Amino acid sequence: MPDVTCECFDFREDGRDGAARATTVTVAHGTFQTPIFMPVGTLGTVKAMRPDILVDEVKAQIVLGNTYHLYLRPGLEVIGLHGGLHEMMGWSRPILTDSGGFQVFSLKDLRTIREDGVEFQDHISGSRHFFTPEKVIEIQEVLGSDIMMAFDECPPAGVDAAYMKESMARTTRWEKRCLEARTRTDCALFGILQGGTDPGFRRQHIEELCELPFDGFAIGGLSVGEHSQAMYDTVELSTELMPADRPRYLMGVGTPENLVECIGRGVDMFDCVLPTRNARNGQCFTREGVVKIRNTTFAHDLRPLDEGCACYTCTHFSRAYLRHLYKAREILASQLCTLHNLTYYLDLVGDAREAILAGRFAAFRDEFYARRHQNGAEP
Amino acid sequence: MPDVTCECFDFREDGRDGAARATTVTVAHGTFQTPIFMPVGTLGTVKAMRPDILVDEVKAQIVLGNTYHLYLRPGLEVIGLHGGLHEMMGWSRPILTDSGGFQVFSLKDLRTIREDGVEFQDHISGSRHFFTPEKVIEIQEVLGSDIMMAFDECPPAGVDAAYMKESMARTTRWEKRCLEARTRTDCALFGILQGGTDPGFRRQHIEELCELPFDGFAIGGLSVGEHSQAMYDTVELSTELMPADRPRYLMGVGTPENLVECIGRGVDMFDCVLPTRNARNGQCFTREGVVKIRNTTFAHDLRPLDEGCACYTCTHFSRAYLRHLYKAREILASQLCTLHNLTYYLDLVGDAREAILAGRFAAFRDEFYARRHQNGAEP
Repeated sequence: MPDVTCECFDFREDGRDGAARATTVTVAHGTFQTPIFMPVGTLGTVKAMRPDILVDEVKAQIVLGNTYHLYLRPGLEVIGLHGGLHEMMGWSRPILTDSGGFQVFSLKDLRTIREDGVEFQDHISGSRHFFTPEKVIEIQEVLGSDIMMAFDECPPAGVDAAYMKESMARTTRWEKRCLEARTRTDCALFGILQGGTDPGFRRQHIEELCELPFDGFAIGGLSVGEHSQAMYDTVELSTELMPADRPRYLMGVGTPENLVECIGRGVDMFDCVLPTRNARNGQCFTREGVVKIRNTTFAHDLRPLDEGCACYTCTHFSRAYLRHLYKAREILASQLCTLHNLTYYLDLVGDAREAILAGRFAAFRDEFYARRHQNGAEP
Repeated sequence: MPDVTCECFDFREDGRDGAARATTVTVAHGTFQTPIFMPVGTLGTVKAMRPDILVDEVKAQIVLGNTYHLYLRPGLEVIGLHGGLHEMMGWSRPILTDSGGFQVFSLKDLRTIREDGVEFQDHISGSRHFFTPEKVIEIQEVLGSDIMMAFDECPPAGVDAAYMKESMARTTRWEKRCLEARTRTDCALFGILQGGTDPGFRRQHIEELCELPFDGFAIGGLSVGEHSQAMYDTVELSTELMPADRPRYLMGVGTPENLVECIGRGVDMFDCVLPTRNARNGQCFTREGVVKIRNTTFAHDLRPLDEGCACYTCTHFSRAYLRHLYKAREILASQLCTLHNLTYYLDLVGDAREAILAGRFAAFRDEFYARRHQNGAEP
């Protein structure tokens, strides 16, 4: 097994309440406290957010970068010239990068899976590329990621058992190759658990992977179209079997409800495009549910988006003004709604952490549901 | 003549160097120091800029709002509900609003000029509206503008003498009606001088208008397609004839060169969409000229946009990264380039003020030209 390990990585549990836990993770660019939500910075920017505002106002502790997208644009040469992704994008806190696997496998008709890796044509120029486990580790090391993700296949919901079995076995081989491909001692590496929503497959892949010396583990293959309950059941089964001494990251999830439910089931880390993407579509997450700011009902509404929120948007602007900005396609609408949505997500996980440390997570969860869907907010 | 005057308006000259002058203007929402550039906030937002950043970082002292656009969207009812434009857009410093005349006259085929006012169909829904001098004052009073502009006709460059004469006479009548239509004692009112680039007409309109009790005067009818030299000559002729004890505002101008030249000819106030609009098109103004950030030449350029600039953009990001953001159509590109361009414009007028107060405006102007068009920057 590998000679290279991450020398700066540290993980400790700060408290636990039922299955929910509060932990502190240390990586090359500092620490972050869980449960945590990681804003998505696909192309080297969390869309519509200045990095200093992300730190000072949103209190983001770690962001996610997309290996596939950054590899294509601006490309490794440009990022390498800057000294890495942190330096290029002006972000000095931790960064987690995905492996590109999820994006590559989304290119359904444009990719071919081989034992060695995946050949694909990119979605921009149509050029041919070949991603192998070794290649995606090399890319993530150029990015200078604090937490790299192993290269896996994420099969769509509903594949047959034979395919799932073959895919899982190949993913295991690929992930082992990722461990062996590391050269930097300041980049942690997480393994990714597949197996869909089938308990048997999940259990099998967890057993195969969790004996390997990854710094943490991600639950992959969810949020791909399955029902919420199937997701929750799979998460519950997974966290029970995953090692307690390493971080647990649920990839690509989710709604505020998803976060609360999965924190309650022992997940530490989340990422999702929902708060940022939906903000740009005028959908704001509030303590009372979703406010679709374009709706006529808000045209004369002088209240803030979310009475309980202390963000710049909620302390300075009315729903009526935000609606005006959104309808006039003003960039400021995206800025203000993104700021609010991310603040809401980070407040949510921060409040969950406090509740866990205070031993009142169940009450936190009850309060969360009790406030939903009032004052014009929708599910 | 009018019973109502602006009780809070104050103007004093702080210094003079040749024709260039430094002044302090006091209006309902505070003071601003000239020469000043006013960022344009057409629809109740300076595009891509949070108001707090406009104050704290750009050091903007006054912004411009567009009466025509705000009247259409979100409309007076919504703005009135908020208590005015300042409250709605979260801006507590001075606001100057145009009269809507320029926009209405731009609707060439959709408007009819009558003695009473202008009937027009708006550019959004095509609905019919009628703007009179009284109406535009009423609108600007609902907006709560610190400086309202009188309703004028801005004829395009090259109209014949007969039309210009008729138009100027009507504008004079309209502006007198504006003075009489005021009801608020906290809103200053500026007159607008027309007359194209013909010295005779200019002189005539200045003589007609400048005896009226406006709080300040604007040079209108320029930046409509005439040559720079014609603009400069008209400005020079105008400022020599305009009263020295009131602010001089050159409407819709212009490039950094235009500002330096017209400050040297005695103009105090400027507004223009160039720094904000061009920022969104990836054209950045720097001490060395225009940097078109999309150009391939910047793909590996690790330098800031402008070495001499202390803005967040220039102190944190490379040209290569900005180019990447711009090409990937990231909103952050608009945010960062707008922040830089406005900072550059406000720095420019601030430096001009310092030079005037130090009696070294001619040297300032020479230095400005000496640094242009180096390091990849274009005219």
